[in-house]
Amino acid sequence: MNQIRIGIFGYGNLGRGVECAAMHTDDISLRAVFTRRDPAAVKLINPDIPVVSSSEVAAWKDEIDVMIICGGSAKDLPTMTPQLAQMFCVVDSFDTHANIPEHFARVNDAAQQGKHLALISCGWDPGLFSLARILGECVLPQGSTYTFWGKGVSQGHSDAIRQIPGVADARQYTIPREEILEAARSSDRHEFTAQQMHTRECFVVLKPDADPDTVRNEIVTMPNYFAGYDTTVHFISQEEFDRDHRTFPHGGTVIRNGNTGADLENHATIEFSLNLDSNPEFTARVLVAYARAVYRMHNRGRNGCISVFDVAPADLSPSSPEELRAHLL
Amino acid sequence: MNQIRIGIFGYGNLGRGVECAAMHTDDISLRAVFTRRDPAAVKLINPDIPVVSSSEVAAWKDEIDVMIICGGSAKDLPTMTPQLAQMFCVVDSFDTHANIPEHFARVNDAAQQGKHLALISCGWDPGLFSLARILGECVLPQGSTYTFWGKGVSQGHSDAIRQIPGVADARQYTIPREEILEAARSSDRHEFTAQQMHTRECFVVLKPDADPDTVRNEIVTMPNYFAGYDTTVHFISQEEFDRDHRTFPHGGTVIRNGNTGADLENHATIEFSLNLDSNPEFTARVLVAYARAVYRMHNRGRNGCISVFDVAPADLSPSSPEELRAHLL
Repeated sequence: MNQIRIGIFGYGNLGRGVECAAMHTDDISLRAVFTRRDPAAVKLINPDIPVVSSSEVAAWKDEIDVMIICGGSAKDLPTMTPQLAQMFCVVDSFDTHANIPEHFARVNDAAQQGKHLALISCGWDPGLFSLARILGECVLPQGSTYTFWGKGVSQGHSDAIRQIPGVADARQYTIPREEILEAARSSDRHEFTAQQMHTRECFVVLKPDADPDTVRNEIVTMPNYFAGYDTTVHFISQEEFDRDHRTFPHGGTVIRNGNTGADLENHATIEFSLNLDSNPEFTARVLVAYARAVYRMHNRGRNGCISVFDVAPADLSPSSPEELRAHLL
Repeated sequence: MNQIRIGIFGYGNLGRGVECAAMHTDDISLRAVFTRRDPAAVKLINPDIPVVSSSEVAAWKDEIDVMIICGGSAKDLPTMTPQLAQMFCVVDSFDTHANIPEHFARVNDAAQQGKHLALISCGWDPGLFSLARILGECVLPQGSTYTFWGKGVSQGHSDAIRQIPGVADARQYTIPREEILEAARSSDRHEFTAQQMHTRECFVVLKPDADPDTVRNEIVTMPNYFAGYDTTVHFISQEEFDRDHRTFPHGGTVIRNGNTGADLENHATIEFSLNLDSNPEFTARVLVAYARAVYRMHNRGRNGCISVFDVAPADLSPSSPEELRAHLL
């Protein structure tokens, strides 16, 4: 089988997930992991894969078909993706929705210059959830779209809690409200805010002598993150935290609720949902499937920046068009 | 707005659904309906749309951008789609899964000859459910896919009951078993047959003097359709039938159940479901969205036969790529 040679740029939870995905994908071969840390300090699952300093990445131009960039959206990707797109075909998971148009423009310029193809904002939201939203709006143009997140760990909210004085560790779960999920499916349509659609549950380990009431108050009143939400705070021991709250489950649901018929008298719902033991491992699986598409589309002459909206599903699959039509259509 | 001119070939429940969809789609303009019946006997929702004899369809070659073919898969589409694909870009809803490769080959030859683009097997299954299946397999290659149909009316099974002597009218609902839906989501994976996954509920109006026990026995033992299924038969009056069983609700669920992680130790499910008051109206909505994509792809030079697997989501939408990235990604 003709193998697609990938690189991983950045080795945190997501980068490790890409390594796992490559291990279980026959037509994908992981050639190297690039890091801004000391390469000797980065331990891969497979010790035979080279770990290379990010400063040497240019030397790998001809060894990597698609670079999967596993940096953060806030500080890393806005500069990292354009830089790498001049040298490689790339896939990133940029997820700051409001800044996607600006990121797209910068990556597009760089990729055009380098004659490479870059796919940004891949994963499950943005990513698979974006596909559910566009399909819903195209098939049911008269309707409403609802995106629910959870139940799952929000790393941004967990990090925010850890910034509070007196907090030793914290995990925040975003939980969709069952009654609003039901309402979003019903023919009696309403608009809902994110605060109405979700509750937040926090598990916090306090430092010695920290005051629980003060910490709780800091959390529930935190602007942008918790204010306006129905937030529950549980104080637990480090032992309980380590036992029950070390994994990264997540998921969510996109509902398109619309109408059909001459007078829009009939009701239809389209629902797409995910339930994931490991958010970073699943996100990595999506990145790897889209890396395959990027490789193929670039081989057909496509350059510049694209998103999941520009990829035909057949390009995601290792199977031939004939096999796909015979078995999956 | 630049409008795409469509035609409808065949005016039954699906053709009527396409007329409804076009009424509510700004960039789609319905130019004519073609029928094998006497055109004077076909009553559209909008009486200003011309109804034309199918024998005159060739005269409309330059008036129709995409013809939406609304014939039956058993007898109509195997000849109708290749014939029309020589003259028009076309979309059909061919749904005999086992015969898709053969249908594809014939339509591809005809469309290549005519330099047109044909998209076959569109709707929700095959169609949107096929997208859910291919996405599931590409993102979670280690896993199982389950397709459940219903709760909804199976017209094939309803027709089969109506062939039994003594039956005046009949409606058959296919119902997924809740406990198997739950099992398909669980990490403890099993294989299930269609008979295990679904029950069948029949509402039957008898002719005078028909024997209920004989009819019931004919139904539940009918090979291919009911034998092996948990089938319930209700005998009801024509009044009750006309009041409660005249519509075409349907829906279903595709579940991909797979694993992630270095040792596939984590579990993930992807679920896509539909809940539709009107099966033909919703199917028609899907056909119209894909007609838009066919028009655009043909304008970019694409000929031959394709399926939903070959269409990038952006081509389904009337919005610009910039709008899509800003609002739906």
